[in-house]
Amino acid sequence: MGDTATAVPTKEDWKTVAARKKAAQLAALPKEWIIDPPELSRRNVTNVPAECGLLTPRELEITDTKDVALLLEKLAKGEYTAVEVTTAFYKRAVIAHQMTNCLTEIYIEKAVAWATSLDKALAETGKPVGLLHGLPISLKDQISIAGLDTVMGYVAWIDKPAEKNSVLVDILLEQGAVPFVRTNVPQTLMWGETFNVVFGRTVNPHNRTLTPGGSSGGEGALLGMGGSPLGVGSDIGGSIRNPSSVNGLYGLRPSYDRIPYEGSVTSGQGQEGIVSVLGPMTRHVSGLKIFTKAVLDAKPWTRDPYCIRKPWDAESYALAEHGEGKKMCFAILWHDGIVRPLPPIRRALEKTKAALEAAGHTIIDWEPPVPHGEMRPIATSIFGAAAGEDVIETVKSSGEPALSTMDPLRPPPDRVDVPEGGKLVWKRDGRPDPVPLSSYEFFNVCWNKRAMQKKYLDGWMATKDRTGTGRPVDALITPAGPYPAPTHGNHIHAFFTTWCNILDYPAAIFPVTKVDQELDQSLQRTEFLGPEDEKVHGLYTSPDVFADAPISLQLVGQRWEEEAVIGMTEVVDAALAAYQ
Amino acid sequence: MGDTATAVPTKEDWKTVAARKKAAQLAALPKEWIIDPPELSRRNVTNVPAECGLLTPRELEITDTKDVALLLEKLAKGEYTAVEVTTAFYKRAVIAHQMTNCLTEIYIEKAVAWATSLDKALAETGKPVGLLHGLPISLKDQISIAGLDTVMGYVAWIDKPAEKNSVLVDILLEQGAVPFVRTNVPQTLMWGETFNVVFGRTVNPHNRTLTPGGSSGGEGALLGMGGSPLGVGSDIGGSIRNPSSVNGLYGLRPSYDRIPYEGSVTSGQGQEGIVSVLGPMTRHVSGLKIFTKAVLDAKPWTRDPYCIRKPWDAESYALAEHGEGKKMCFAILWHDGIVRPLPPIRRALEKTKAALEAAGHTIIDWEPPVPHGEMRPIATSIFGAAAGEDVIETVKSSGEPALSTMDPLRPPPDRVDVPEGGKLVWKRDGRPDPVPLSSYEFFNVCWNKRAMQKKYLDGWMATKDRTGTGRPVDALITPAGPYPAPTHGNHIHAFFTTWCNILDYPAAIFPVTKVDQELDQSLQRTEFLGPEDEKVHGLYTSPDVFADAPISLQLVGQRWEEEAVIGMTEVVDAALAAYQ
Repeated sequence: MGDTATAVPTKEDWKTVAARKKAAQLAALPKEWIIDPPELSRRNVTNVPAECGLLTPRELEITDTKDVALLLEKLAKGEYTAVEVTTAFYKRAVIAHQMTNCLTEIYIEKAVAWATSLDKALAETGKPVGLLHGLPISLKDQISIAGLDTVMGYVAWIDKPAEKNSVLVDILLEQGAVPFVRTNVPQTLMWGETFNVVFGRTVNPHNRTLTPGGSSGGEGALLGMGGSPLGVGSDIGGSIRNPSSVNGLYGLRPSYDRIPYEGSVTSGQGQEGIVSVLGPMTRHVSGLKIFTKAVLDAKPWTRDPYCIRKPWDAESYALAEHGEGKKMCFAILWHDGIVRPLPPIRRALEKTKAALEAAGHTIIDWEPPVPHGEMRPIATSIFGAAAGEDVIETVKSSGEPALSTMDPLRPPPDRVDVPEGGKLVWKRDGRPDPVPLSSYEFFNVCWNKRAMQKKYLDGWMATKDRTGTGRPVDALITPAGPYPAPTHGNHIHAFFTTWCNILDYPAAIFPVTKVDQELDQSLQRTEFLGPEDEKVHGLYTSPDVFADAPISLQLVGQRWEEEAVIGMTEVVDAALAAYQ
Repeated sequence: MGDTATAVPTKEDWKTVAARKKAAQLAALPKEWIIDPPELSRRNVTNVPAECGLLTPRELEITDTKDVALLLEKLAKGEYTAVEVTTAFYKRAVIAHQMTNCLTEIYIEKAVAWATSLDKALAETGKPVGLLHGLPISLKDQISIAGLDTVMGYVAWIDKPAEKNSVLVDILLEQGAVPFVRTNVPQTLMWGETFNVVFGRTVNPHNRTLTPGGSSGGEGALLGMGGSPLGVGSDIGGSIRNPSSVNGLYGLRPSYDRIPYEGSVTSGQGQEGIVSVLGPMTRHVSGLKIFTKAVLDAKPWTRDPYCIRKPWDAESYALAEHGEGKKMCFAILWHDGIVRPLPPIRRALEKTKAALEAAGHTIIDWEPPVPHGEMRPIATSIFGAAAGEDVIETVKSSGEPALSTMDPLRPPPDRVDVPEGGKLVWKRDGRPDPVPLSSYEFFNVCWNKRAMQKKYLDGWMATKDRTGTGRPVDALITPAGPYPAPTHGNHIHAFFTTWCNILDYPAAIFPVTKVDQELDQSLQRTEFLGPEDEKVHGLYTSPDVFADAPISLQLVGQRWEEEAVIGMTEVVDAALAAYQ
């Protein structure tokens, strides 16, 4: 008996811990918000919020307000209260969660308390609290809120509530926003799909047999269902842009160190060769500017030592360096030399070209100054330089598996490669295991990266002679991926986004169309750029596989030119709207 | 005979190559500019330009014009021609070289040709070519000019002329400057003294038994002799500030990535944990703004992919965030917890305090939010992470020695540690050999660095409550080193500058006084902060050792606040002038 009393408590099995977390999440859902689910075979669930009867007509009106500017206007005037807006989006988020498994932390009471204090302040002062007064904002499961876990897909991080808010959360609260839910991610964050052994898999609301993308896939699915007006994701290889793209959203990947990362967690902390950044994902183009300006107006550099002292630049947003937005020249990247985009993506490029030409702009073809295939090994080396040591350390502490695939048909999560002897087996078809680098080798990779950045910059500047505007190309229009959202486990080509992370070009996603069963027939191609091209081609057996999938594109600007990228995205968005 | 004909040519011994380079340098000096040297025992040679008879009264007038703004004004008006200004400074630079051994590349014809074209342009258009019309600018031996070697202290780099200009040189030429000489450095650039086996040792013109500092020591000595109105150095641990300080100059270490580094060479390329930056060194405070604004106005981000898109900020320079420069609060760092500054430095701090108080500002003591001793291992780890692999590769290719000391009394250059078996022995008293790090270890060091940056920032911001201005401390005033220029081989404590490189704080050097034989008597201290403190104390056997040595201090601002740092340095400079 003495023995039992002094025994070290048995460590819980990781599955028990994960199951307990998931059960607590379920318990956090108000019973009355649990809806009758549609049949599992129903692919497109985006209409469920309107159909399920949980939302009142007013709540539907509120949550159907895609325009963030309009929502803020009504909140500032008191036409909507912060509490009713927060409640409406919370209900819709919970519906979205039941349909797509998009949420992680659910904390209704805390969010409503914040909203209540905003309503009180408005009533007392007659003034909105900040630029984001009353706006519910969803956050990827990396962005810490005091008192809540930041699980980030790891069993190991359960029951470790954050001691304080991340800098971004402090700023959002000061600007009057209501950070109201957190959203699911893949383990490691280094995947374009969303699955982990704590919260499971998130699916695409437009077609649940498809991935919502990743790593900000929880955000993507939530926003795709209208369960949030604006969310914050992170992007080190495309993790904001990929889920924005496949869920028909607007998303901005800013350049390094403009939006404060301080106090948020991530993978590969301290790796500064290719840097993860935070940025907005939203259902209306207005959200991009509103979020970015609100954060920069709070002078994040006074709280995050990495944030560049560079305020919101109204002139840049007004396109002062781009002919005030008139008669611009865009260059289209039709393919990246590795993979040719599938038919609906090609159609989106053509449509955008026509829309921009109709609006008086010029379009030329983009010839990358550095072939994108030459840049890719840089990312592979940098992302693999530490050989996943941080992942190994984390999963070892709980005993949970390190995932080596997002494919639900391949090894289930409890059988995948548990690292042994400190070596993480991290293999995907056609890609090498990560090779650990010495610092010196890492520095050499960074030096090569810099040389490519210089070459790309010079090439871009040299286009001045063929744009007809007297300026270099104003922005690039490129695919955000070679395919619509693929079926689960089939995300195989991320480089339509990752090249921007290497070059640190700000890039925005804008929706263009959806897969069209008639217009987007499969092509019979027999010549391929390489094995990945052939494999991507093979995914498109029929447009029906991708039924209802949104198709979006990417606008790419020069480094640290976020404001102009937002301004130009608004121009493109308007051109597309006018072209219908 | 057939054998001899096809034999691989014998590789020249490194000493032969170095001697040939040095002979070519000597041959580049016009015979008529060779002066009768004063006796070798003469310590202070700063008056030699005025005494030696080589310079005409007008050339003396020109080269005695310390105020860069005034010089530019006379050049723009045509009161001085670019050719005469370039010639005058070239002559004085060659005198300085004969006294201090400060130059590397000497190319009079090319410089005069540039100046001639400027005079022609002014005559034809009536307008100066750019913001730096006709200003001779000296460059540290890292900043490439097409057609010239960039030796950077390595025999291995002799006879490898640059194919093109560095971005900075292109910009300086476009702004009308005349890059007219290049200046000496220590091998590796990682020393606060200036010696290499190609060009030898540079000495301090105020007292030739003292070091001119380093690694921009050639610049320091040249400018200290008035041989250049403005020079460009680089700084990764203090290499602009240390030689500026010990030569009585103004110098600015900007934050990372504002002044273009692209196309210049350096040590540790690709190491982005603590980054080398370029910045101005000059004899009048006006030079800091003039250089920085001229470079930023040329939009360096359109040519250097690492340059932040952040134009010259006139509001920041006008101290908009610092009460328009009135009633500011400065905090003084009296010592860094590792070493107490020697008597003349202490006197300079007290004098500056009194001058600023007399000008209506407030002074408080600086209590570092992170003890500086805790930060130092970060720099040691990062600088040592690659264990000097790049140095090893370079010296191996020529057979030259890798220097392990700057001490002329310790192993002479032809006997020091030639690396064998790939391991560079790089030992200084009390410091460990560099330990090579894996990428993962390097990332962890960078992560720790970031945590310290956050803690320092928060601590700085928290001073708001005790400044009396409603703002946090406007800037810090600190020693630039614990001593005046030490005798050769005795630079032992760099951390009064290096902590700014870790935190990436912009910092400017301003001259305050000179060693005073009466006021700066040695102190009899018996209690020390640690062994380095005791060792530094031991250097100050008598003020006569440091006769005529300039004493300068450092003003430190927030990250990416170069304009405000320049503005505040002007305020401090004016306060000191008024206080005499």
